[in-house]
Amino acid sequence: MKQKKLAIIATQGTLDGAYPPFILASTASALGYDVQIFFTFYGLQLLRKDVGDLKVSPLGNPAMPMKMPFGPKWFRKINWNIPNAIQANVPGFESLATTLMKKTIKNKGVASILELRDLCLEAEVKMIACQMTVDLFGFEKSDFIDGIEYGGAAMFFDFAGESDICLYI
Amino acid sequence: MKQKKLAIIATQGTLDGAYPPFILASTASALGYDVQIFFTFYGLQLLRKDVGDLKVSPLGNPAMPMKMPFGPKWFRKINWNIPNAIQANVPGFESLATTLMKKTIKNKGVASILELRDLCLEAEVKMIACQMTVDLFGFEKSDFIDGIEYGGAAMFFDFAGESDICLYI
Amino acid sequence: MKQKKLAIIATQGTLDGAYPPFILASTASALGYDVQIFFTFYGLQLLRKDVGDLKVSPLGNPAMPMKMPFGPKWFRKINWNIPNAIQANVPGFESLATTLMKKTIKNKGVASILELRDLCLEAEVKMIACQMTVDLFGFEKSDFIDGIEYGGAAMFFDFAGESDICLYI
Repeated sequence: MKQKKLAIIATQGTLDGAYPPFILASTASALGYDVQIFFTFYGLQLLRKDVGDLKVSPLGNPAMPMKMPFGPKWFRKINWNIPNAIQANVPGFESLATTLMKKTIKNKGVASILELRDLCLEAEVKMIACQMTVDLFGFEKSDFIDGIEYGGAAMFFDFAGESDICLYI
Repeated sequence: MKQKKLAIIATQGTLDGAYPPFILASTASALGYDVQIFFTFYGLQLLRKDVGDLKVSPLGNPAMPMKMPFGPKWFRKINWNIPNAIQANVPGFESLATTLMKKTIKNKGVASILELRDLCLEAEVKMIACQMTVDLFGFEKSDFIDGIEYGGAAMFFDFAGESDICLYI
Repeated sequence: MKQKKLAIIATQGTLDGAYPPFILASTASALGYDVQIFFTFYGLQLLRKDVGDLKVSPLGNPAMPMKMPFGPKWFRKINWNIPNAIQANVPGFESLATTLMKKTIKNKGVASILELRDLCLEAEVKMIACQMTVDLFGFEKSDFIDGIEYGGAAMFFDFAGESDICLYI
């Protein structure tokens, strides 16, 4: 049987936006897929050496459950629907949300972004940084991890055009 | 002719983000497609018993037209470009935007999310809740409607790898 | 060899959300693909005669690098992580971010949205406005450019079901 192919365009650079491409890529890879990810726009943040900076913002996303990852069970079950008026005006609210999500992820035994990215690299998932947006945002190659390639949309179509699944994330 | 397959990954939990997966799934189903939706991250909100809670946020989305669904025609045509400074500081602005959108949807005779979801269930669209994010966000099975399955990304790839169209929403 | 097909569903109406569909469509077209774009929800903004209105919002997107497109090199390299508290309360902050991004795009020699859209039209990329959301948002045909078609999701599936790549942007 022909090897299946998964092509991903990763455009989000938030903590919650970083999980889907790496989880899908590593899962597909474990299932025997040949996988390529094209990182463009804010997705370039996922290729930075330091991904500890990735943040999550509940602002403008009323669907995000804000739960506390500590305390008694009844306390953990509360969904703190913090009004935008507070979120937008209390400096550091984004950092709080980021800390809570990271703590929850750790408590639940879910892998970190760094671990998932390493898993993808070991599984030989091919990672391509979009040269145009690298230039546009003024990134330098030294900002990014080793083992990645640089190219344009045309390069990506070579692979995507033959893929079984192509996702724009 | 082989039956066509549509695979959807639904990751958004807002009112406006809820329409695309259910509209595309019910349309494809009516056209004879075999359809599966994998709900993950904020998309899990779309499987809750009470979807009346879904909200829409104009904050950080300057592309959203804010129009009044009542009053004379000239009044309805105005696009109220409310500055973020007001949106973020007037408590209940998100609720106002949600009410306006729901009223507009109803006035135009568009189906509600609940109706579209029921339509998908009747059409035997297979709905899968991502077990990892169910655990991560602390949801319980009793939060969700009946008739859905629980599984991981690997389970979804079985179907997606054979699909004609695969969308990440 | 059979001509390859790219199908795109464009749902975003921001300045940064406008680039991906037009860049991918024009690139694919240059590579010999047959391309169709279905514009729905906020994506309808991309079909308006005046796309000069498109804005970008850093609010709720902590991944957006905010860099100054002028001044000495050390100054351009700073990433101005403006807190939400300031972004949300200083009127015109969205306009500032939009101006900075447009200036950066121009300085880097990247094409404008108008240029890319024209390129797509010349390359005979088929553009379809979603009739349901046109009605829902109260748009009129005179708001949009000439040379586009109007239809529903069913019309789009005709093409998407036969496509090699289908992207939901």
